[in-house]
Amino acid sequence: MRVAILAHEGFPDRAKTAVGILRYGDDEVVAVLDRTRAGERVRDHVSNVADAPIVDGLDAVEEPIDALVVGIAPIGGGFDETWRPDVRGALERGADVVAGLHSFLGDDDEFARLADEHGAEIRDLRRPPDDLAVSDGRAGEVDAEVVLTVGTDCSSGKMTTTFELAEAACERGVDAGVVPTGQTGIAIEGDGIAVDRVVADFAAGAVERMVEEHAAEYDVLFVEGQGAVAHPAYSGVTTAILHGAMPDRLVLCHAAGRDAVHGYEHVPISPPGEYAALYESLAEPVAPAEVVAGSLNTQRLDDDAAGEAVEAYADAIDAPATDPVRFDAAELLPAVLGEV
Amino acid sequence: MRVAILAHEGFPDRAKTAVGILRYGDDEVVAVLDRTRAGERVRDHVSNVADAPIVDGLDAVEEPIDALVVGIAPIGGGFDETWRPDVRGALERGADVVAGLHSFLGDDDEFARLADEHGAEIRDLRRPPDDLAVSDGRAGEVDAEVVLTVGTDCSSGKMTTTFELAEAACERGVDAGVVPTGQTGIAIEGDGIAVDRVVADFAAGAVERMVEEHAAEYDVLFVEGQGAVAHPAYSGVTTAILHGAMPDRLVLCHAAGRDAVHGYEHVPISPPGEYAALYESLAEPVAPAEVVAGSLNTQRLDDDAAGEAVEAYADAIDAPATDPVRFDAAELLPAVLGEV
Repeated sequence: MRVAILAHEGFPDRAKTAVGILRYGDDEVVAVLDRTRAGERVRDHVSNVADAPIVDGLDAVEEPIDALVVGIAPIGGGFDETWRPDVRGALERGADVVAGLHSFLGDDDEFARLADEHGAEIRDLRRPPDDLAVSDGRAGEVDAEVVLTVGTDCSSGKMTTTFELAEAACERGVDAGVVPTGQTGIAIEGDGIAVDRVVADFAAGAVERMVEEHAAEYDVLFVEGQGAVAHPAYSGVTTAILHGAMPDRLVLCHAAGRDAVHGYEHVPISPPGEYAALYESLAEPVAPAEVVAGSLNTQRLDDDAAGEAVEAYADAIDAPATDPVRFDAAELLPAVLGEV
Repeated sequence: MRVAILAHEGFPDRAKTAVGILRYGDDEVVAVLDRTRAGERVRDHVSNVADAPIVDGLDAVEEPIDALVVGIAPIGGGFDETWRPDVRGALERGADVVAGLHSFLGDDDEFARLADEHGAEIRDLRRPPDDLAVSDGRAGEVDAEVVLTVGTDCSSGKMTTTFELAEAACERGVDAGVVPTGQTGIAIEGDGIAVDRVVADFAAGAVERMVEEHAAEYDVLFVEGQGAVAHPAYSGVTTAILHGAMPDRLVLCHAAGRDAVHGYEHVPISPPGEYAALYESLAEPVAPAEVVAGSLNTQRLDDDAAGEAVEAYADAIDAPATDPVRFDAAELLPAVLGEV
């Protein structure tokens, strides 16, 4: 598939879906739409991905595309009306529109009509299946080993770490798969349930179902965590995933230097070691799991500072750590796969 | 209002909505429907409430009623098709139907048509408002004191304790109100949001909104907790309420003698003291709150055993405790209101 990615005013730092697709997706990205960076290039901002131009809107994309993907997820997950011309333009070309917003584009009258007229499809990745149920508390019984990424905040690297670890494990010959729980993971994998969009009572049940289904296919599952257990808005989703997945081991993700919750500057982030202990205490009564490794997002540091930060982080959580993007996720595999 | 309460095969132990309405509601209960106990009386099973006959179906209720209330909430919250004749009968009489199920009775074609034909209203208490949003993490800033009931399991007495404490506080002249978060509390209070039925990402936001609204009216709020923080299915909702409400103090509810999660017998319940510590560690990074009192459901014990169990429970959680139904909720007020 040839896709354009909408990321207005957010690329790359507040466009994690865009970056995730660039980094882990199979689709060819022909352009990124960000009106504040028109004329720049993807590689000016993100390393180790295929390059593409950044343009100010869909009208500037001359190549044919199969789909426009909404690659930003604002807090609250709403649709920004300034994106309407781009979505309209894609549908008028007959291109599909893929979005992971809380508000469903398929429910928008104009978009639904345009999709119908031009034979395009609107895929709302967060729309949950309609047959979800409460968890049976049985995910711990699956045959596969289950590793869950957890974080000290949202946007701390859980999705990235999940994919990096799965790739590294596959490269080592391990039959590993990803269980995506958010819109970016779903966009990359082509399946999954956006747990944050599920009826709260069914959130753990949705995760349990995905773990059971994926466990029939793989030996090791990397479950993408969401939010953080001490997040003022998203901790419920985090807890539902922890208890729904009943993982064997946890990988704690943290953004180097971040000391307050993203978007909630009045809520400080606890020291990573306390955070690890909190996840372990919370897991213990339902399905005990230890933080066996750490993933540190060192994007904002230079190489020297990054190395030092990783070392300090490993000390703080008393487990091996790395930055899986800057350094090598494979370093964590022995701990993550339970070999040590 | 004159109401009949549907509680087939569940009264009283698996019909907590029915018992809640009998105990704390303002409505006159003319009959309870439970086909397994037809001919018995409400007072045979529940003390300190107005008596009423138990009958095998709505056809046996001869008095006029304003509403039929579904008073049982099966795990999963689905509609049991054996209840259809009773719901149909109520609507055909022009009586409203009030339900707190996950599946909405108003979306059932037959019920919607009957309600329309007979001028009756179907009130689905779990249907969430359509303008919910993510939490701002600001509930801690309200003027009112906020007390949250938390539990070691579901059906451990959180709703009961919430209402008993609020009543006791009001009797002492405190301007206290209840923030209902589940179907029974909503049925009693006439307002509130069923947090378990909300989109998971908005669960904390729904609680925050209710706390902010109620804080404008009362000096002290008793927030009804849900589930339990180590529950395999409902812990997400529990955590969302804890962080959404940002309470000043916690009251830990436990059912005496219960040692495994209700409906999840393979998951043991941790000792209450460990449970209290877990709630406190989880609250701490977002809004610190201590377990200042305990509520023990001693329904299954005799008076002597109940007294001993309460004493042991108080020791275990290192806080004053009582059974607010058997003994007196007012004993807990000094601790709960922060006077000691």
